[in-house]
Amino acid sequence: MDCLEAIKTRRSCRNYLEKTVERDKLHRILEAAAYAPSPVNKQPWEFVVVINVLCKKQFFAAAEATRLKLAEKSGWKWLSAFNIAFLSEAPVLVAVLGDPAKNGAEQFLDEPGNGYIEACSCAVQNMLLAAHAEGLGSLWYSLFEQKDAREIFGLPADKVAIGVVCLGYAEREAGAPRRKSVEEMTRFID
Amino acid sequence: MDCLEAIKTRRSCRNYLEKTVERDKLHRILEAAAYAPSPVNKQPWEFVVVINVLCKKQFFAAAEATRLKLAEKSGWKWLSAFNIAFLSEAPVLVAVLGDPAKNGAEQFLDEPGNGYIEACSCAVQNMLLAAHAEGLGSLWYSLFEQKDAREIFGLPADKVAIGVVCLGYAEREAGAPRRKSVEEMTRFID
Repeated sequence: MDCLEAIKTRRSCRNYLEKTVERDKLHRILEAAAYAPSPVNKQPWEFVVVINVLCKKQFFAAAEATRLKLAEKSGWKWLSAFNIAFLSEAPVLVAVLGDPAKNGAEQFLDEPGNGYIEACSCAVQNMLLAAHAEGLGSLWYSLFEQKDAREIFGLPADKVAIGVVCLGYAEREAGAPRRKSVEEMTRFID
Repeated sequence: MDCLEAIKTRRSCRNYLEKTVERDKLHRILEAAAYAPSPVNKQPWEFVVVINVLCKKQFFAAAEATRLKLAEKSGWKWLSAFNIAFLSEAPVLVAVLGDPAKNGAEQFLDEPGNGYIEACSCAVQNMLLAAHAEGLGSLWYSLFEQKDAREIFGLPADKVAIGVVCLGYAEREAGAPRRKSVEEMTRFID
């Protein structure tokens, strides 16, 4: 698939078919992740690939409780109605772990940056694009508590779960939300 | 260019030719940025495209002072010798601004996330890939102080400069740093 086409036609998928994701596809998606840029090439990422049905169900249950709590805390109505069944229905969940010890020199700035989060985010974007190029749907999910992810996926305490990426064959094509135009979001200093 | 090929052959470019970047290419690169995922589709990004030579030189001078300070603070020897002339030599710098007011519900977690940084990072990765597909070199640069970026690029105080992306035709092809193998960085829960 053409690169610009992949970028422009990737969608967040919230409905997955019960169809196994081929291991070679998964391998290429994870390989793509590692080609993201990172501070001093520290590659601050690790991945836990969850295919086990019970483990996915446990995560879904914890995320459901979190969703209800966030709906109450935020007062955001759409969150109360948000169906996150995709967390147990997607054939594959990939927990993306970042290592805060692998920041670059931006950690020494007056307003310190967190290069490891930025690098892991780029790795996730590569995964979403590679999944799309492989004919798979994907979704970056972030609404979970670290303690739940640590417990359910058995994560080390010194790593941060940046997100959980759902992967699988899409049940249907998702719509394209409106994007800002270049003119709306850009200013030139000529 | 094929999507997986673009992901795997993109390199960080630190040497640019004195050759103007076509406006239509720039437009497609910025357009690609907006197709990144973001919490609740808030699209927390804005861009300042710097072509003005004096403005690039001012930023280079400020970043030089910062680099020396960071080299001292970190004690990292490579930083003392790091040649960042690309900041004035690249024909185009794009300051990527994030809006901390445009986080998603992850801001209400016990360990709050910063979805706007993650979304802006995905937007940058799209830019780097789109630039590569358009035959351009690129680099994500983060070693600058916010106050310098605000002053030199005239940024609003409520936005954060996530990074500065250098764009231009590469003088030569950069080498490929080693990547972790899938086996090294992945664990399966089957």
